[in-house]
Amino acid sequence: MSLEAPKRFLFSTAEAAIKKPGRKDIALIYSETPCVMAGMFTTNKIKAAPVRLDMQRIKRGIGRAVIVNSGNANACTGSQGMDDAFEMSETIGNLLKVSKEHIFICSTGVIGTPMPMDRIRPKLPLLVKNLGKSSLGDVASAIMTTDTFPKIAYRKITCGEKEIVISAICKGAGMISPNMATMLCFIITDANIERAALDASLRSGVSKSFNRITIDGDMSTNDTVLIMANGTAGNNIIKKGTKDYRIFSEALSDITFELSRLIVKDAEGASKLVEIEIINAKSSSDALKAAFAIANSLLVKTAIYGNDANWGRLMAALGYSGAMIKEEFVDIYLNDLKVAQGGITTGSDMEANEKLRDREIKILIDLNIGRGSARVLTCDLTEDYVRINAEYRT
Amino acid sequence: MSLEAPKRFLFSTAEAAIKKPGRKDIALIYSETPCVMAGMFTTNKIKAAPVRLDMQRIKRGIGRAVIVNSGNANACTGSQGMDDAFEMSETIGNLLKVSKEHIFICSTGVIGTPMPMDRIRPKLPLLVKNLGKSSLGDVASAIMTTDTFPKIAYRKITCGEKEIVISAICKGAGMISPNMATMLCFIITDANIERAALDASLRSGVSKSFNRITIDGDMSTNDTVLIMANGTAGNNIIKKGTKDYRIFSEALSDITFELSRLIVKDAEGASKLVEIEIINAKSSSDALKAAFAIANSLLVKTAIYGNDANWGRLMAALGYSGAMIKEEFVDIYLNDLKVAQGGITTGSDMEANEKLRDREIKILIDLNIGRGSARVLTCDLTEDYVRINAEYRT
Repeated sequence: MSLEAPKRFLFSTAEAAIKKPGRKDIALIYSETPCVMAGMFTTNKIKAAPVRLDMQRIKRGIGRAVIVNSGNANACTGSQGMDDAFEMSETIGNLLKVSKEHIFICSTGVIGTPMPMDRIRPKLPLLVKNLGKSSLGDVASAIMTTDTFPKIAYRKITCGEKEIVISAICKGAGMISPNMATMLCFIITDANIERAALDASLRSGVSKSFNRITIDGDMSTNDTVLIMANGTAGNNIIKKGTKDYRIFSEALSDITFELSRLIVKDAEGASKLVEIEIINAKSSSDALKAAFAIANSLLVKTAIYGNDANWGRLMAALGYSGAMIKEEFVDIYLNDLKVAQGGITTGSDMEANEKLRDREIKILIDLNIGRGSARVLTCDLTEDYVRINAEYRT
Repeated sequence: MSLEAPKRFLFSTAEAAIKKPGRKDIALIYSETPCVMAGMFTTNKIKAAPVRLDMQRIKRGIGRAVIVNSGNANACTGSQGMDDAFEMSETIGNLLKVSKEHIFICSTGVIGTPMPMDRIRPKLPLLVKNLGKSSLGDVASAIMTTDTFPKIAYRKITCGEKEIVISAICKGAGMISPNMATMLCFIITDANIERAALDASLRSGVSKSFNRITIDGDMSTNDTVLIMANGTAGNNIIKKGTKDYRIFSEALSDITFELSRLIVKDAEGASKLVEIEIINAKSSSDALKAAFAIANSLLVKTAIYGNDANWGRLMAALGYSGAMIKEEFVDIYLNDLKVAQGGITTGSDMEANEKLRDREIKILIDLNIGRGSARVLTCDLTEDYVRINAEYRT
């Protein structure tokens, strides 16, 4: 996958054999100049130690580096977990000669197991020494857990006459549910941008992408999105409400949407990408409830896996979603084929079964009672999902 | 399975080949004398036609017979579905020479497919003619869908010097989630009991049993529990607040609890029965939220299937349950083995993996912040669940 990184960001990766040996599992993202930063974090009440540390540090809105590992989430690890996260960021800060307050840390992997600091500690000097020897793509690979491919997206935009690059990587796989999508995402840019603008742009992008996907309804303890802007593009500073802000935000939204699609495509065991669009709901929040009820229904997800246009299961999910539903008004389309009109069959189930053999499924439901709409991405539920998650730690 | 039916109830079954030929799929339960009745129904906004009919008729609290079929839920079938349900109950009423208002009707099976009335219609006279030729156990078999065994429970109690029998059958399998457990349940008794007492007793029993189980979080359009009391035991009428009421209610609670366990044991593809008990939550409703978040977590259910004492997934589910959680106070026991204390590992994961090989798993979580408690039954999630539900209609 081609990837252009923004100016003056350096990367390195190393193998610390955190879960098991045989792959790079720790990485460093570093900006040669100070960055304006913004972040969003899991709303789970149980937060991993690095999340708690980052939530404190992001308040200043300044940073230089992110150290990230896969294989261990450093969650449910008590005060030792906090000590470990603190030590990792402090060591990296000392080696980089940067305040530890400007070092962010992210972990992903198994919950409840103490970090193997004896294996991590010796790799930290190596990470700093090797900065520049890895690509952002290498970092994307190092943060994978059950992901089957690295997830990368980037955009180039022009503000004034300056070219700005925004690049992002993320990991997903399982434990994906909104608020936020359960994942780590790092976005780096050489844009020169105000903190408030960066923050607003990030929130806007995430709300329409990572917060609109679900794989299994499980929200993790480690979700983190961090954006770093080092200003080296030399553009006039981007402020909220300007044309440049709109250009920047649109590019950022595109990137987060692209990544969220990649996450769902690579969902554990998934064989199909499923887009659910609810239109003409009583309200937008009703539309969102309906979309998520369907997206999280095991019976819907298994039917899609089985190429079974069992639209009755969609109706059942609508009925318990909490959204206002008038059964006799509901129209349902599967990949553009109308399977239900006014709440009853159109007699095209057999034809619809064939449509479900596609790898990308679009479920469009017209509730015909208002003007609210929402769109959510999910995937089917397969035996492989069960197998992967039954064997995750073994 | 031995089963003693209460006095003066008669049963019949027939094969109408509703979904496919080869098994009895329609049944009649009939009391020779008028019954006091109570019922509880799905809270899904999409309600099957027979549910809507029964909800009207139960208001009078009187009935004589229930006609029930498997293979087709008669849900999402529009006005034709209502006509069909109406016709079935009217025909049975005419044949029995009983007002159609005293005939109840229940359907379970596929949603969204019109009832095959051409195959059902000719069997209705047969059902009435053959009354007495089938047992309640035969009815339990006829209402099965993906159930692998019929579910029956009964109790004998003594009120005054009169012996009363309470017998019940139900079907479950998938689409099981509280409010109510997704299923049909028919309870018959020869008790002489006031309508208000029967109703209160039923609600109390269901709240502690069928409303405390979950298989996949999907709530069906057809959930129905009906109880018929024909008074032929000759006991003094049971009124609320009396000793006899307590005896009757306790027996009824025992029956519904026994049946709800059987439903979870026979959950689609399940290999293990899982009981989740939350203690010392901030409130009872918090305890229930926490218990259901865990019970519905795919990551928890797959870990249990895989004999993986991955208690971090329990913590993650607690964290997003909406219940108040203080991470550092949480103690977790798996089959009496403490795997987490104060939110961190006790180092006994390997030993706990062995414990998870049992067929019955008890997850006990002490939140240590209040006095609320709750208990929920569920099962593990297996490849077989996916397979069964991916192939349900084929």
